Amino acid sequence: MNSDEAAIRSLIATWLDASSRGDLDRVLELMAEDVVFLGPGRPPMRGREAFAAATRAAEGRSRMEGRAEVQEVRVLGDWAYSWTQLSVIIHPIAGGIPARLEGPVLSVLRKTGPGRWVIFRDANMLAPAGGDTSARP
Amino acid sequence: MNSDEAAIRSLIATWLDASSRGDLDRVLELMAEDVVFLGPGRPPMRGREAFAAATRAAEGRSRMEGRAEVQEVRVLGDWAYSWTQLSVIIHPIAGGIPARLEGPVLSVLRKTGPGRWVIFRDANMLAPAGGDTSARP
Repeated sequence: MNSDEAAIRSLIATWLDASSRGDLDRVLELMAEDVVFLGPGRPPMRGREAFAAATRAAEGRSRMEGRAEVQEVRVLGDWAYSWTQLSVIIHPIAGGIPARLEGPVLSVLRKTGPGRWVIFRDANMLAPAGGDTSARP
Repeated sequence: MNSDEAAIRSLIATWLDASSRGDLDRVLELMAEDVVFLGPGRPPMRGREAFAAATRAAEGRSRMEGRAEVQEVRVLGDWAYSWTQLSVIIHPIAGGIPARLEGPVLSVLRKTGPGRWVIFRDANMLAPAGGDTSARP
């Protein structure tokens, strides 16, 4: 594994850890300013500021824990993509039944300096565990 | 727009056209043998043969029409990624209410020769139009 691949795997682990600790500032460092987040059933979310606003709006409502299994990291010069299988449990702070989500994430990353990468495009396909919520043409 | 970007936009249009005509052989030419298809609520589908088998198993059950709005194509040497917003209508052959699906597709493409590209990784986030079927940690 070369150092770029190691840096990207570390970024994925840091993202999950910082998200579960609610450390938004740390998560924001891991994405490009002009990042785009894509997902099923919602419009594209464009930009780091939009991500920050959406996260702050949801703050204090739930706590998450997650596990990421990196399936593939491919470095293409100053660009890369990664494919990760995610498993997440969302615990509502007010109590109630935790939600279990799982699914793949396909991300495009950009190198911003030696050993430094950020998420640039992100396709998050988390869905309720065990269910099938989609279709393909 | 350079010729690689034009070839990738043409591939996306051809994919949609061949899919709507039920021309599986043409669709299969547009993907790598070791392609992986990712989506919410289903396990990764690995390989051209698996795609062909799944498509043949569903043959004759529905007819689809679709529209693709390419948001971004970025060529990275012999690799590229594309982000497309898809709208699809699935018409059941036996009759009944057509299903409307929409959502983004993020694809990683690989160059296999001059002006020739194939889909290598594909994150299909089609979901019932108007609904929100997912969550983000």
